[in-house]
Amino acid sequence: MKHVICGKCVVCGKEYAATPNLTNCECGGILDIIYDYAYIKQNFTKEALAARAEHSMWRYRELLPVEESTPNTPLRVGWSPLYEAPALAQKLGIAKLWVKDDGQNPTASLKDRASAMAVAKAQEAGAKVIACSSTGNAASSLAGNAAAAGLKTYIFVPSRAPKGKVAQLMTFGATVVSVQGSYEDTFELSKAAIDRWGWYNRNAAINPYLSEGKKTVGLEIAEQLGWKMPDYIAISVGDGCTIAGLWKGLKDLYAIGFIDRLPRLISAQAAGCCPLNRAIADNAQWYPMEENTIADSIAVGVPRNADKALMAIRESGGVVVNVTDEEIMAAQKLLGSTCGVFGEPAGVTGAAGLKKLCEQGMISADATVVSVVTGNGLKDVANAIKACGDPISIPSDMEALLSAFAENNIIID
Amino acid sequence: MKHVICGKCVVCGKEYAATPNLTNCECGGILDIIYDYAYIKQNFTKEALAARAEHSMWRYRELLPVEESTPNTPLRVGWSPLYEAPALAQKLGIAKLWVKDDGQNPTASLKDRASAMAVAKAQEAGAKVIACSSTGNAASSLAGNAAAAGLKTYIFVPSRAPKGKVAQLMTFGATVVSVQGSYEDTFELSKAAIDRWGWYNRNAAINPYLSEGKKTVGLEIAEQLGWKMPDYIAISVGDGCTIAGLWKGLKDLYAIGFIDRLPRLISAQAAGCCPLNRAIADNAQWYPMEENTIADSIAVGVPRNADKALMAIRESGGVVVNVTDEEIMAAQKLLGSTCGVFGEPAGVTGAAGLKKLCEQGMISADATVVSVVTGNGLKDVANAIKACGDPISIPSDMEALLSAFAENNIIID
Repeated sequence: MKHVICGKCVVCGKEYAATPNLTNCECGGILDIIYDYAYIKQNFTKEALAARAEHSMWRYRELLPVEESTPNTPLRVGWSPLYEAPALAQKLGIAKLWVKDDGQNPTASLKDRASAMAVAKAQEAGAKVIACSSTGNAASSLAGNAAAAGLKTYIFVPSRAPKGKVAQLMTFGATVVSVQGSYEDTFELSKAAIDRWGWYNRNAAINPYLSEGKKTVGLEIAEQLGWKMPDYIAISVGDGCTIAGLWKGLKDLYAIGFIDRLPRLISAQAAGCCPLNRAIADNAQWYPMEENTIADSIAVGVPRNADKALMAIRESGGVVVNVTDEEIMAAQKLLGSTCGVFGEPAGVTGAAGLKKLCEQGMISADATVVSVVTGNGLKDVANAIKACGDPISIPSDMEALLSAFAENNIIID
Repeated sequence: MKHVICGKCVVCGKEYAATPNLTNCECGGILDIIYDYAYIKQNFTKEALAARAEHSMWRYRELLPVEESTPNTPLRVGWSPLYEAPALAQKLGIAKLWVKDDGQNPTASLKDRASAMAVAKAQEAGAKVIACSSTGNAASSLAGNAAAAGLKTYIFVPSRAPKGKVAQLMTFGATVVSVQGSYEDTFELSKAAIDRWGWYNRNAAINPYLSEGKKTVGLEIAEQLGWKMPDYIAISVGDGCTIAGLWKGLKDLYAIGFIDRLPRLISAQAAGCCPLNRAIADNAQWYPMEENTIADSIAVGVPRNADKALMAIRESGGVVVNVTDEEIMAAQKLLGSTCGVFGEPAGVTGAAGLKKLCEQGMISADATVVSVVTGNGLKDVANAIKACGDPISIPSDMEALLSAFAENNIIID
């Protein structure tokens, strides 16, 4: 990879050759992939990009840590729609709002970007098997993207994993091992198996390439906005890998001169699980927190990408905001009814945070904002049911309909 | 609309001016939209299309029944991925196979194409409200696409409608009226309300524009294949509107010279509900049938687009095939594990039918086939759970893992 210099520890600064199997630094710190921007700038132009027919995350290969000979992964990951949302902007009292719907990915979440990268790197490593321990979007995106590429997956889930999620994994042909124990027990067994059989490890806690896949969401936002950056980008935060990836993508574009300013990040966490935002608010180190929220995809009490995430929020002059489950459910309905975008609870937490900041007067009326929806609401219909209440219920009778409309203050124009 | 001649009854041939509110012929027959292909050919070229930045169903405006001034609807409907599937082609013993994943639409089904068209025509009609009676993909796609366009929706569902589907509708801001009675009762009340308040009617049984939206799936398949048509296109069939739309799109392209041959359609229905395939097999009229299948989106015992669908299948020299629920569930897993595509039961029924025809030796080994997946598996996780069986369940212990792998004949390379 002529355009990649090394993997560099974000804690101690030690550098490592960028081999496909790269994991954490010997000090325990996670690595960041360092690019040769001077080299990249020579051959990569906005015009070349605009002429490209590839409408997936792989259109940005010059900025991705893969060999020239590595094939694009088969599923269409990325190039999700960026919708302008004037009605919602008006409701929130801001100048411009765009919604990036990353639920429109093959397995319906932003995690597909990381999993597609894992599949590409596994193929570079000559691996035929990829493994991870997860019950959520990481697992389903890995299973789907690996299946399409003809790779086997072994996925370790705790026995409490919802049956629906397990069924999705099995539909993708994953060998699913349900471990009778906690998530920690599950992780330990997966680690032992990965070590024993030399499987490729799709684990955002140790694989520095995954956030490089996720950064394509930032690259797309910039290109879809014609390289004119908004004032803010709002996104939900759990483990920290996603917001760190988003920021990395934006910094890449700034480094090669495609954009001339960087937005401020809005880091939205659930009030019931916000160790990273707490660290920013207290200007202190992060420490673990309980996981009390319906937004399961960001219920991460011990975030593994804390270092990268905190750096990203601080560097951007970011804003942190914590939202209750009620605020998350309200945002779900608000996005659905004004934009036609149905996000899972974790997926709409960024929008919930933006709404709260607007109500608190923290965002000025002339602000321009992108809100990223990170996962599809179809992933968690149970919580949508709780959020929605009951429909009008009547016999098949016009008088009953008229009465029900009157009772519910529904006025037909 | 200079490129549209009229709406013409498929039963009696009577012609109607193509107004936005067009409904059935006075004889009860459904109308077909007739285009002026000579006019369209003058200004529409493959080269112009290839240069177009719009990657949605609206890239084909020259072939769509909308005014020039009508805006594209907001959500990114269409331009779903067409995946080449060599591993599955090999398993089925055919030369080439592509999978068109229409579950990758904003509300996760092909129905978004029809609903986006309904929203466009409602706007032409000056309507502020659209209504329908449905519990399925038609309702959710209407609610989502209308919300994004700022239109209100009233959706009538029978009281047995699954709570998850109702929740999705309410998240999109639809006013949902749950009718205590059968589907027929629900339909009657919706009809009375539509007549009373003059709402725009999104009902594939009477609105001839909806199949014009659906035809874009055919336009895309042709363009994505570089205008080289496959021997067959396999698709699931319920009401008949989708296969009729697909065929209409292909015939449009043939009429303007973009393709030089037409594929044969494979019409796949559930064995428990196959009135249209039965009519083809018996070379007779269709008559109603019970609705016994897990593939709820195609469980249509009284298909409203029977005339158009039967004509399409017959004209194409089509093949009909009925599949059991077990065969549908097997196809779901086959598509998932070989292609990374997770379809709902009705969504994979076309693939199930193709598989069955291959096993019966009805499809030659040199055949090229496109299989359309019409809806996302996340719409119906309950049936995926039934199809998948249970995962391996063990304590967190390497010996237990080794024993479980041995018992399940899992051999690690």
